Amino acid sequence: MNDTYHPVAVVNPTPREVAEWIDGRLLEGESAPARLAGLATLSQAGGDEISFVASEKLVREAQASRAGLLVTSPRFDVPGRARVVVDEVWEAVARLLDRLYPSPRPAAAIHPTAILGEEVEIGDGASVGAYCVLGDGCRIGAGAVLGPHCILDAGCTVGHDSRLVARVTFTGPVRVGERVLIHPGAVLGADGFKFELVRGRALKIPQVGAVIIEDDVEIGANTTIDRAFLYETRIGRGTKIDNQVQVAHNCQLGPGCILAAQVGIAGSTRLGAGCMLGGGAGLSDGLTIGDGVMIGAHAGVHSDWPSGEVIQGAPAMPARAFWRVMAAQAKLPDYARRLRALEQKLEGREGR
Amino acid sequence: MNDTYHPVAVVNPTPREVAEWIDGRLLEGESAPARLAGLATLSQAGGDEISFVASEKLVREAQASRAGLLVTSPRFDVPGRARVVVDEVWEAVARLLDRLYPSPRPAAAIHPTAILGEEVEIGDGASVGAYCVLGDGCRIGAGAVLGPHCILDAGCTVGHDSRLVARVTFTGPVRVGERVLIHPGAVLGADGFKFELVRGRALKIPQVGAVIIEDDVEIGANTTIDRAFLYETRIGRGTKIDNQVQVAHNCQLGPGCILAAQVGIAGSTRLGAGCMLGGGAGLSDGLTIGDGVMIGAHAGVHSDWPSGEVIQGAPAMPARAFWRVMAAQAKLPDYARRLRALEQKLEGREGR
Amino acid sequence: MNDTYHPVAVVNPTPREVAEWIDGRLLEGESAPARLAGLATLSQAGGDEISFVASEKLVREAQASRAGLLVTSPRFDVPGRARVVVDEVWEAVARLLDRLYPSPRPAAAIHPTAILGEEVEIGDGASVGAYCVLGDGCRIGAGAVLGPHCILDAGCTVGHDSRLVARVTFTGPVRVGERVLIHPGAVLGADGFKFELVRGRALKIPQVGAVIIEDDVEIGANTTIDRAFLYETRIGRGTKIDNQVQVAHNCQLGPGCILAAQVGIAGSTRLGAGCMLGGGAGLSDGLTIGDGVMIGAHAGVHSDWPSGEVIQGAPAMPARAFWRVMAAQAKLPDYARRLRALEQKLEGREGR
Repeated sequence: MNDTYHPVAVVNPTPREVAEWIDGRLLEGESAPARLAGLATLSQAGGDEISFVASEKLVREAQASRAGLLVTSPRFDVPGRARVVVDEVWEAVARLLDRLYPSPRPAAAIHPTAILGEEVEIGDGASVGAYCVLGDGCRIGAGAVLGPHCILDAGCTVGHDSRLVARVTFTGPVRVGERVLIHPGAVLGADGFKFELVRGRALKIPQVGAVIIEDDVEIGANTTIDRAFLYETRIGRGTKIDNQVQVAHNCQLGPGCILAAQVGIAGSTRLGAGCMLGGGAGLSDGLTIGDGVMIGAHAGVHSDWPSGEVIQGAPAMPARAFWRVMAAQAKLPDYARRLRALEQKLEGREGR
Repeated sequence: MNDTYHPVAVVNPTPREVAEWIDGRLLEGESAPARLAGLATLSQAGGDEISFVASEKLVREAQASRAGLLVTSPRFDVPGRARVVVDEVWEAVARLLDRLYPSPRPAAAIHPTAILGEEVEIGDGASVGAYCVLGDGCRIGAGAVLGPHCILDAGCTVGHDSRLVARVTFTGPVRVGERVLIHPGAVLGADGFKFELVRGRALKIPQVGAVIIEDDVEIGANTTIDRAFLYETRIGRGTKIDNQVQVAHNCQLGPGCILAAQVGIAGSTRLGAGCMLGGGAGLSDGLTIGDGVMIGAHAGVHSDWPSGEVIQGAPAMPARAFWRVMAAQAKLPDYARRLRALEQKLEGREGR
Repeated sequence: MNDTYHPVAVVNPTPREVAEWIDGRLLEGESAPARLAGLATLSQAGGDEISFVASEKLVREAQASRAGLLVTSPRFDVPGRARVVVDEVWEAVARLLDRLYPSPRPAAAIHPTAILGEEVEIGDGASVGAYCVLGDGCRIGAGAVLGPHCILDAGCTVGHDSRLVARVTFTGPVRVGERVLIHPGAVLGADGFKFELVRGRALKIPQVGAVIIEDDVEIGANTTIDRAFLYETRIGRGTKIDNQVQVAHNCQLGPGCILAAQVGIAGSTRLGAGCMLGGGAGLSDGLTIGDGVMIGAHAGVHSDWPSGEVIQGAPAMPARAFWRVMAAQAKLPDYARRLRALEQKLEGREGR
């Protein structure tokens, strides 16, 4: 309980093998061990471990690191050390992690406790876990993995090589693309929250649309994405969504967006491509947000913003203005005091 | 993946049938097709589809719509078009959606994998889905539906015609009324978060109360409603709760409230009837909020508010004041500059 | 549905038995009944019920209460009433609740529908519920309880006398200490949200670390705690976490912290011992927060804070400053008006 957890590598590669795995150039320094025990941070690495220099400002820390082998870039090299030079350090790190600590893959099989409706199609090499419940007509692509306890309503589709880690629920029609990763507890396709006041009572408007998840999306644990009123709620290709995010009915998220945890987006709001939303940011309904808009953590967005804006605060404003306003706000009691002093001064003069 | 999803109607009604379904008056214009293919928005409707005019400001868009049949109101009619005139357009839309795209209903049966405790009562026509686990003495009303993977502790009750869509969990005693709808991932009856400092340590106070959900309530995906310390946490009749809302122990929510996603209400706070809470709003513990209070998105409420108030901001203030304050706040750096200018001017004079 | 729920006690103790259970001193007043029917609040207690005086300011209410027996402290006694005097009233209340309304304990057994991987170890007296799925090599301590529908990846451990109430999911290696309580819907060990921009695309960095939960921790419903990139995300001994909290990868929470509902903590942030976080507070990544820091509800914390600080607001500032700033902010429109008045006054004089 009190020792720090270290993952255990399934292989112990030579420096040469490391270089081959990551298409790098091996430069043998004085320190390279014969075999590497695993990947470590610069500060924690032992002499038998690989570490990596992910930015210029880590070069000094890298020089002091005990790591037996460094992954570096021509842009931030550490001369004299045993190292493997690559163009993209993070890409190399990702590959090393996959080699050293591969995540176990369930067998390509349908667990005997899984319950499949009629005319369900399961692709080659796909896996359906224990206690899954798939409605009629679901189609699971080749190589896809449904972990235990997933529930898919009739007519859902999961593209090839996608993975529902465990306990993922799709209600209504949900169509998931290829290489999508969905974490436990996510609920896709619950009814959009649409009520209209009729004779003084909130009348539920049935939600009959779908949720469409394009390729290469990731969706975090306990995140909820509601089905559309009509048509669809859509998450664009390559968009990454963290835990406990709420995406309401009929939202359209562009490709390549990043949504941090606990973001909430109200109905029918549209994000362009490549937007980045900080943790806990909230967006009102019916907004149009351009491409590449960056929205700060905890921002409250009530209006449209054009492409390229960087916004912050609640209600949101351009980030530069926000920080100026916040700096001034912290001095407000002082300003108030000075304002009173001026008033008294002038009052005094008036009196003269 | 790239085509927009369209729901497929199970029937293609004639204009006359549409009028009958929604108790409307059919006015045959030049454009009515023999049969309608489904319901569509004004902008997306094709000539074989029904669309609807939900407000005055959509009349112009309705005139331009290609829809084959319009649902309109005497208050916002679209003369010349084939249309069905009704008093309440949204009510008509809800009925049409139920007719055209009925949500499938599971068979009235107890799935063989469901595990039922002793003396569980299941009403006529009720359905208990795959892998449900019901504790001793649970009572499920007539026509109620428990989707797959629901877990109910001993002694829970679900009223007639209520629906737990899938993977809903009740711990402790939870009593659910009639026609209640609960979405996947909701957890009702987890322990209230009550700790008291005893000899420097947080002591857990056991929570032995219940959760009471009155009739016609809707509860969103992954929402959590904690059981009371003693007695009950209660959600009033007809209150609608969106996804990822947190209602703490001993809260009392009045009837007809609307809580948008990610709202959080701390322990023992009371809402009157017909309150509306915007997304992400947070309420402190022990508050009393009157009837019909409207609380803006992301508001932080730390004090009681009387009936009829419209509040916004954190800490919350009346919405009119809030928007005035926000407008002034945006000019704060300018005010600060002007304050300094005045000071210097007076300083200069003083110096003279 | 309309009657208030009251829990029913499994035993009806005499005043003397109550005193023995809570190691208190029985002082028989005029009012003590022969047997007590249960525990109640001061205002709701009937003549056959026990109530308790948890603070000085409740003494007057206690005097007016109809309770048949009061639990009091030497610090806030209620002379003349039948009462049991103890040093720590809340500790006595907790014990009474456990005696009067014990939470049912499942049988020490592995449910036949539970699916256990290879070399799973289940301790003496432990219980594994219906439809649980445990991966290879999981170790469940003596007396631990896994409620229905829990999913544990290979290699997870749960210490003795811990309880996963129901539907708790562990992915990746998760190590849970002793006497830990985890509520339904919690997801521990989902991938940390770590992407790096490589050639213009967000590249997922595999997460191979663990989640470590120390002894006596409580984790709320639908809370998510992500696994670390390397090494571990750690929750310190005795820390209590409410519902819908998000703790990102590599966070380190000290012992004895209290996190209210909907808190979000971004990656690699460290909390010292005994921090208290109000509902909905958000902390940026990479921060270091000292011991005993109190963070207000809905605060947005973007910088480090030393031990003992009390902070509030977004961006957070010391609470005293925050309330001064908020008081001044509410007057901003007035200040702006007065500033203009001063300007005009001086302008007028200039003109002279």
